[in-house]
Amino acid sequence: MSDPPFRSDPVEGPQGPPAVDVATLRAAFSGRLLTDAADMAPFLTDWRRKWTGRALAVVQPDTTDDVARAVGWCRAHRVAVVPQGGNTGLSGGATPDETGRAVVLSLARMNRVRSIDRENNTIVVEAGVTLQRLQEEAKQAGRLFPLSLAAEGTCTIGGNLASNAGGVQVLRYGNARDLCLGLEVVTAEGQVWNGLRGLRKDNTGYDLRDLFVGSEGTLGVITAAALKLFPQPAAQVAAFIAVPSPREAVGLLQAAQQRIGPALTAFELMSDTCIGLVEKHVAAARLPLAERSAWYVLLEVSDSQDEAHAQAAVEALLEGALEERLATDAALSASLSQFKALWSLREDISESQGAEGKTVKHDISLPVSRIPDFIETTGAAIRREFPGLRLVVFGHLGDGNLHYNLSPPEGATAADAARFVGLEGALNRRVHDAVVENGGSISAEHGLGVLRRDESARYKSDVELNLMRAVKAALDPLNLMNPGKVLP
Amino acid sequence: MSDPPFRSDPVEGPQGPPAVDVATLRAAFSGRLLTDAADMAPFLTDWRRKWTGRALAVVQPDTTDDVARAVGWCRAHRVAVVPQGGNTGLSGGATPDETGRAVVLSLARMNRVRSIDRENNTIVVEAGVTLQRLQEEAKQAGRLFPLSLAAEGTCTIGGNLASNAGGVQVLRYGNARDLCLGLEVVTAEGQVWNGLRGLRKDNTGYDLRDLFVGSEGTLGVITAAALKLFPQPAAQVAAFIAVPSPREAVGLLQAAQQRIGPALTAFELMSDTCIGLVEKHVAAARLPLAERSAWYVLLEVSDSQDEAHAQAAVEALLEGALEERLATDAALSASLSQFKALWSLREDISESQGAEGKTVKHDISLPVSRIPDFIETTGAAIRREFPGLRLVVFGHLGDGNLHYNLSPPEGATAADAARFVGLEGALNRRVHDAVVENGGSISAEHGLGVLRRDESARYKSDVELNLMRAVKAALDPLNLMNPGKVLP
Repeated sequence: MSDPPFRSDPVEGPQGPPAVDVATLRAAFSGRLLTDAADMAPFLTDWRRKWTGRALAVVQPDTTDDVARAVGWCRAHRVAVVPQGGNTGLSGGATPDETGRAVVLSLARMNRVRSIDRENNTIVVEAGVTLQRLQEEAKQAGRLFPLSLAAEGTCTIGGNLASNAGGVQVLRYGNARDLCLGLEVVTAEGQVWNGLRGLRKDNTGYDLRDLFVGSEGTLGVITAAALKLFPQPAAQVAAFIAVPSPREAVGLLQAAQQRIGPALTAFELMSDTCIGLVEKHVAAARLPLAERSAWYVLLEVSDSQDEAHAQAAVEALLEGALEERLATDAALSASLSQFKALWSLREDISESQGAEGKTVKHDISLPVSRIPDFIETTGAAIRREFPGLRLVVFGHLGDGNLHYNLSPPEGATAADAARFVGLEGALNRRVHDAVVENGGSISAEHGLGVLRRDESARYKSDVELNLMRAVKAALDPLNLMNPGKVLP
Repeated sequence: MSDPPFRSDPVEGPQGPPAVDVATLRAAFSGRLLTDAADMAPFLTDWRRKWTGRALAVVQPDTTDDVARAVGWCRAHRVAVVPQGGNTGLSGGATPDETGRAVVLSLARMNRVRSIDRENNTIVVEAGVTLQRLQEEAKQAGRLFPLSLAAEGTCTIGGNLASNAGGVQVLRYGNARDLCLGLEVVTAEGQVWNGLRGLRKDNTGYDLRDLFVGSEGTLGVITAAALKLFPQPAAQVAAFIAVPSPREAVGLLQAAQQRIGPALTAFELMSDTCIGLVEKHVAAARLPLAERSAWYVLLEVSDSQDEAHAQAAVEALLEGALEERLATDAALSASLSQFKALWSLREDISESQGAEGKTVKHDISLPVSRIPDFIETTGAAIRREFPGLRLVVFGHLGDGNLHYNLSPPEGATAADAARFVGLEGALNRRVHDAVVENGGSISAEHGLGVLRRDESARYKSDVELNLMRAVKAALDPLNLMNPGKVLP
């Protein structure tokens, strides 16, 4: 490949790498280069304030060529590039390390919708477009962009793709990877790869697109994407269903997939502990059922016909489920406000748990068939080994994805809370060992970043790690693209 | 990575590479190693007899360890590995070259179903399982494996994945890539990567799976796969619809996607020329409509409810389409035999065209929105530049995938036919230039192999080719895995 525009490689001094002068970068990015500590601060810490790093500068490109120029400068000066979108990640993937020898590349200003093709059901957007705006642009064109997750008001599609984000409708529409048809990427060499194809079928060589998707900025910088759109559903209905245990929830999932097919767009599981926390912390929240149950399912049907058809389908499903004792009670949404209220019970779990203090989280996936055993066995082990801890278990059962979270005992003293924090590593190990024994993944939709980097490497085979290292070395031989993320 | 079991690297002689003695390989594969010319012949020529190569031997492994041993031997002796499944490919991807310094690795004996998980909707099979058997195994478990294509009785899932095969239900279920959750692969180093995860969500590093899928055996050997299963639909209905032109067909597709949603499982377009050829060569074929039309659509609905519901959905769609003049007439299947008869009209096109003599084929994809213009403009240009040729245009309109084929003039003399054969290169160039100008792909579902290798490289940017070369060099530094395929 040819060389990037910047060629003035710094000379290694006897004391290690020399100081880097950002003057040439500042000249190229006048007014869009932050070096002041206060200006840079929001870009150097993740939103949960778990990780803080240092950087030479924050660069704010407006165009793909700007990105290529910035990456070229970093390459010439042997400075790391840390791409950042909405900075809403949960694994520390967008925060620079503490060496200070990095430039944070904020894609936030690259927020143009480049084109929309209703007949082809595709949209081409730049990396800095927020997920919510993307949803709105699709809607204005009479189409659906189905990726949806808690941070959608702030997170960007570039970050969603870099971390292969999931969310609530993966069951029907897939994760960010599945929604992506093509990419524009600035390579580690500072070159622009235009792979923005809006094609459902293209078998002309290696799948570079999927290599960059999910690579968390460690192989190149995603600057734009061609994404799938779908028809807007004619109607949506939600049902909040009491189930005796996760085993019946899996049975209900099977029945729903058989009877409702692809109109089943979400299937969420949550324990009564979760709903109790929402009721405690969200004033408007109330259980829509007469009696409590140990577990609940929230399912969503998106119908191409109309609301009555959707309701009839859910009612037929529930009738069978009550007969077969897969469910004990259910509430069905009959209006948009009821639909939203049922969804809020699920969506408010994370924040309600956060209001109880420190949380130990696990974003895991398992074969759906293993989930009932996993919940039973792992729950029993944790209750035995770590008495008093609260299990806050919920997630996207339809995708085999659980947010297997833990909270300190109710009314914990400061000493209890401190002890709980100290248990994080042991709890992670306990949960992740059980996940891997059951053929699962220790990071289902949040990526590895730095949070799960070493833990993931611990469970992967040498063959797999070596394949990953070979890919990394091939596409980023100087190890300048978001170094220290994904791979140890 | 550690070294493979075979270490006796041959010494380069002064006259080039030394002769290779297959004795050690024969000892390891006693009874499963073919070296006799007649025995090897079926493996050295593709089924259409377009390509014939040479090989030192054909090895028939029974297990993944066998494959690792064979690849290790080839690596030690610097001999190329040419993986082969059912040998039904259309691009010459499974035929060795003429140097003779290759071992054909037939995966046909690796044909075990390793496991099936109904609750997780997954099946794990070895590479040599035929697509039809896989469909049958899924059906016996009350599930659907939806990949379906003409060669399904012979082609193997390993080959389907290596070439990312498509077929008729991609619109709803995706291509082979989309149906694959995990892989087992023997790497170019002769090591086994066990990535057989049956998970819908797994964000723990680079997407190695999708790197091997579609790489046509040039990065490693797929030995097994974990695949998605789906519920069996309750009922299926097909409609054969007369449409004035491809423009109305695209309009009808939009309407069908909006009204029928994901229950729309196929949407095929074909010209009257295609149907005329089927009527000429297939005795049982007859147009199910009173009057001919320049173009037809065959659509399929797979319903989760029942046949009546499917019929009502299609009838409502057709009523609107007739009113809006998107369609002029339609026939709806009312029985399984009618359903099959309508599908035969579409499925018999390829063979009927073949019966007319030599065919020049193009397996192309375009944004759906560009297809009407492309068909009109390119058709006019070909009629002008190559008078008398017959355009036999059909394909998976819902995926933007056309089989844009050409036949010599009707009743062509031997001289005409010979002249037509000589035009292949010029016709390819004419069609592919137009495809690329319209943002399309010159190989939608058949892969590159050797047939489209150079042509594809001609249209790709240096940046993309260099990324592909970097990946190839990283995973197969000795260039022994199916060399000469995919990349020039």
